[in-house]
Amino acid sequence: MRKIAVVDDFLTPAHCDTIRAAAAELGFAVDFYPDRLLPAGHEGDYEILFGRCSHETLKSAKNLKWYCCSFAGVDDLLRDELYPNPNVVLTNSSGAYGITISEHVIMVLLMMMRRMPEFEELVRQQQWQREMPMRSIRGCSVTMLGTGDIGTNIARRVKGMGAKTVRGVRRTQKPADPAFDEIYTFEHLDELLPSAEVLIMAMPSTPDTIGILSRERIALLPKDALVINVGRGTAVDQDALIEALEEERIAGAALDVMVPEPPEKDHPLWHTKNLLLTPHTSGNMSLGLTCDLIVEEFCADLRSYAAGLPLKHLVDRSRGY
Amino acid sequence: MRKIAVVDDFLTPAHCDTIRAAAAELGFAVDFYPDRLLPAGHEGDYEILFGRCSHETLKSAKNLKWYCCSFAGVDDLLRDELYPNPNVVLTNSSGAYGITISEHVIMVLLMMMRRMPEFEELVRQQQWQREMPMRSIRGCSVTMLGTGDIGTNIARRVKGMGAKTVRGVRRTQKPADPAFDEIYTFEHLDELLPSAEVLIMAMPSTPDTIGILSRERIALLPKDALVINVGRGTAVDQDALIEALEEERIAGAALDVMVPEPPEKDHPLWHTKNLLLTPHTSGNMSLGLTCDLIVEEFCADLRSYAAGLPLKHLVDRSRGY
Repeated sequence: MRKIAVVDDFLTPAHCDTIRAAAAELGFAVDFYPDRLLPAGHEGDYEILFGRCSHETLKSAKNLKWYCCSFAGVDDLLRDELYPNPNVVLTNSSGAYGITISEHVIMVLLMMMRRMPEFEELVRQQQWQREMPMRSIRGCSVTMLGTGDIGTNIARRVKGMGAKTVRGVRRTQKPADPAFDEIYTFEHLDELLPSAEVLIMAMPSTPDTIGILSRERIALLPKDALVINVGRGTAVDQDALIEALEEERIAGAALDVMVPEPPEKDHPLWHTKNLLLTPHTSGNMSLGLTCDLIVEEFCADLRSYAAGLPLKHLVDRSRGY
Repeated sequence: MRKIAVVDDFLTPAHCDTIRAAAAELGFAVDFYPDRLLPAGHEGDYEILFGRCSHETLKSAKNLKWYCCSFAGVDDLLRDELYPNPNVVLTNSSGAYGITISEHVIMVLLMMMRRMPEFEELVRQQQWQREMPMRSIRGCSVTMLGTGDIGTNIARRVKGMGAKTVRGVRRTQKPADPAFDEIYTFEHLDELLPSAEVLIMAMPSTPDTIGILSRERIALLPKDALVINVGRGTAVDQDALIEALEEERIAGAALDVMVPEPPEKDHPLWHTKNLLLTPHTSGNMSLGLTCDLIVEEFCADLRSYAAGLPLKHLVDRSRGY
C-alpha cells in the first residue's frame, strides 16, 4: 500500500483522524511520528512526507515523491542535493499563515502608531500620562512588499480599517487581490520608498529579496516611516536599520524576523530605540486555527496528488517560493 | 453680533480658520480661548460655547443657548444646576471618537489574544520563547455592550477581521449597523454572558450602565473570556474583576477606564494578573484625525443650529447620552 509519514508534533487526535480519513479514501496508509524521527530502515517505505523533516530524514527517504512541509518559508529546502532524487515535489503550507501573520501585523502596527510600548512602560512605573502624538490606520498609506497569501491578508485588513492606499510590490506584474490599490514590481521600489509611510515586508527569502531593504533604500524612507518585517530577516540591512532608528531617521520598526534568531546576548537589537522585537511569533503554531488550516490544505493537495492534478502550494525550487 | 467662544487647547490654526469661516458664513463672530478661561465680565457675551468648559464658565455664561463639548462622555454635564438656565442645549463630540477608540480595542484585543505582554516581558529579559497558546479574531464571538458610534466602529472592524458573530447589547431594541449580527437589550445580558468569549464595553455612564458588569455577572463569564472596557470605569465591579483575573476565572482584561483615574499608588490594578492597563488613552486627543472630526462635526451642527434644524449630537440630559 502507498504510504504517508506525518512527521510533526502539532497534530491533535482530530487532525490525525482527518488525515487518516482523507488518506484511506485515496488508498494511502498513514504513520504518525510526533517525535519527528522515522524508524531506521523504514525511510524508504514512504511516498509522501508531511510536516517538519530533518535534512537526514528527507535524504534517506529513497522512494519519496512529495514532501509537504508544514511551514511557509522554504529557503532552507531549495537545493537538489537535499532530496533523494531531483524529481521530488515540494509544497509548503503558506496558505495557512495569512490570518495569524496579518493579525500580528495589525497588532504591531497599531502598537507603534498608538505608542503602546511607551504607555506600557509608563504604567509599569505607575506613571500616568495620557497624551502622546498618535497615528491611525484610517487614512494612512501602506506599501506592502510581497503580495502572496500573507501580503493579501494584511492588505485586506489595513484596507478594511480605512487605509487610504495599499500599494503592493512584487517580483512580477501579475493581477493581485482587489485589496491592493496599485501593484508595482521590485524595480520601482526606489520611487516608492520616499512615500512609504508604512512599509510591510512579507516575502520569502530568495535572491530577489535578500538585502532588498538596503542601507541606501532605508535612507530613502520618510522620517515618519514605520517598517514591519514578518518575512525573513535576510531581507533587511539590519545594521543600517538600527542606525536609522537610533538616529530617528525613521519613526519605528517591528521585527519578528532577524539575523540571527535569537540575536546574540550583546546584540543592539535587544535595546534599539523605537524597535518592537518579537521572537518570530507572527506565524507560530500555537494558534489552533493555523494548525487546522495546515492539515486542511495538506488533505486538499493530497486529493489533487492522487488525482494527478496540479498541487496548489507547489514550490518552484529554482524561484524559491 | 451673535458670538461663539471656543474654549479648548487642541485646535490648530487650520481648525480655527475652519470654524471662523463656518461661523462668518452663518453670521457669528468667534473668539478663541486656548487657556480655557473667558475674560471676566464677558461670559455673558456668548450664545455658544464649544470645547471643554469648567463648571464655573458654564454657569457664568448667562446668555448661553448651546454648549458643544469636545469629548464624548457627558456624565459630568447632566445636572440642570450646572447651566445658567435649564434650556441650554448640550451636544457632545461622540462621533469623533469611533475610529481612534476602535483601533485601541483591536490593538488590546490582539495583544491579549496573542500574549503580547508576556512576549514583551520575555524580550525585555532577553529570553526567547516562541510558543504560547494564541487565539484569533477570525472565528471568535464578540459581545459588544453599547452600539453607538464607538460600538459600531468596533463591530465593523472585528467583523472585517473575520469574527464569527458580533452581538450588540443596548438599552433599547432599535435597528443597528449591519456589522451587528444580533441585537439584544440589557435585560438579556445574563443569558449572553456564559458565551461571551470577547466582551467589549463602550457605554456612557448612565443609571442603566453603572455597575452593569456586577460581581454576579462576572461569575457568569466563561473561563476564556476577555473583557475590554473603553466606556466608563463605573460600569464594572472592579474588585470582582480583579479577583476573577487573579483566580484565572477569566482569561484577561484590558481597562482603559477605571475608578479612580489614575488608581491610587497601592491599588491592585497596577499589578493584576492578565490585566492590560492603559491611562485612558483610547480616545485621547493626540490623534489629529480625532481633532479634525471634532471640528468638522461642530461646524456641521453649527449649520443645523443656525438653520433651526435638529442637532446631530444632541444629548438627552435625562437619559444621559
